[in-house]
Amino acid sequence: MKLLCDRIREEGRVLPGNIVKVDGFLNHLVDIKLMGELAKEFHRLFADKKITKILTVEASGIALATVCAQEFGVPMLFAKKAKSDNIEGGLIQSEIFSYTYKKKVTLIVSAQWLNADDKVLIIDDFLANGEALRGLTEMIHSVGAEVVGIGIAVEKGFQGGGDKLRAMGYDVRSLAIIEDTADGKIRFRDEEREEI
Amino acid sequence: MKLLCDRIREEGRVLPGNIVKVDGFLNHLVDIKLMGELAKEFHRLFADKKITKILTVEASGIALATVCAQEFGVPMLFAKKAKSDNIEGGLIQSEIFSYTYKKKVTLIVSAQWLNADDKVLIIDDFLANGEALRGLTEMIHSVGAEVVGIGIAVEKGFQGGGDKLRAMGYDVRSLAIIEDTADGKIRFRDEEREEI
Repeated sequence: MKLLCDRIREEGRVLPGNIVKVDGFLNHLVDIKLMGELAKEFHRLFADKKITKILTVEASGIALATVCAQEFGVPMLFAKKAKSDNIEGGLIQSEIFSYTYKKKVTLIVSAQWLNADDKVLIIDDFLANGEALRGLTEMIHSVGAEVVGIGIAVEKGFQGGGDKLRAMGYDVRSLAIIEDTADGKIRFRDEEREEI
Repeated sequence: MKLLCDRIREEGRVLPGNIVKVDGFLNHLVDIKLMGELAKEFHRLFADKKITKILTVEASGIALATVCAQEFGVPMLFAKKAKSDNIEGGLIQSEIFSYTYKKKVTLIVSAQWLNADDKVLIIDDFLANGEALRGLTEMIHSVGAEVVGIGIAVEKGFQGGGDKLRAMGYDVRSLAIIEDTADGKIRFRDEEREEI
């Protein structure tokens, strides 16, 4: 999506460890108008899928997932990362490895809010190794619900998580796929095609 | 706000420890249409305040803050609860006590995204002891920005955080104030008045 790629080119920065910093519009300070444009694009891509629920994971996926839920006219559910007092029994859990925090993290969703007849669109701001998304798909399958697709704002293509999920058969749509950050320069997948 | 109080009466549940569970529409599975109605009400209350930014804290405040940012046409910034790789130097920090996790938590905002000329509306889904909100106001003041007001969906009036913030001079507007949960029954502040 040209709008998003342009914004990443203008404002994104590459930090050591291949971290792509886009915290001025995507995952810390959030440009809600831009989120609205991304949500419209996801709606275009998944409009015919009879989606019943948007699922994301706390925290930085929530803003985009909220605007997508608006666009699709369905509720938004977010998986939590640790047990708090506010979630009681009846939990769906999935253990993932968080590369951000360098430790195992348990994703949790209350079983009450995810049902066998749900057609779920997973939304997240970032896709790198795909661990969080693997966890979310696991939880959806565990109740017999359907993963209709996975909508991502920024995929770090060179970390392979997206292609792994595609190979598993998931319909992963990333609005910007960063293929390379060599020399601190951000290069997108299909860049030539995009320029046409 | 009658719409929200009615919804809490219908679907809210009181758990041991005075926990009011509203995770079917507010802070786990989120009814985005309801969030839109709450955001409109906040806009009505703070419309003339020339707000430049919505500030909340991860994770459950983000959905409501996102919809409010849409309503006001400004960006949304969310404070993070722990240092991750994605936030580098130039941090504004505030230490709070989290009653949910029963430990000290450091709130973090990148100094780059909060400026002296910002007029900030703080939004959160819940107000109990007010610790998170105290931390957010501290961070706003530390850069010389203005706290224009605090908009809350559900305040637990009996825990005193809201009244403490009001006594400090903040314009705290809660759309539902729960005064009492004795015998597992939810009673709102100004209930008689609301019935008129």
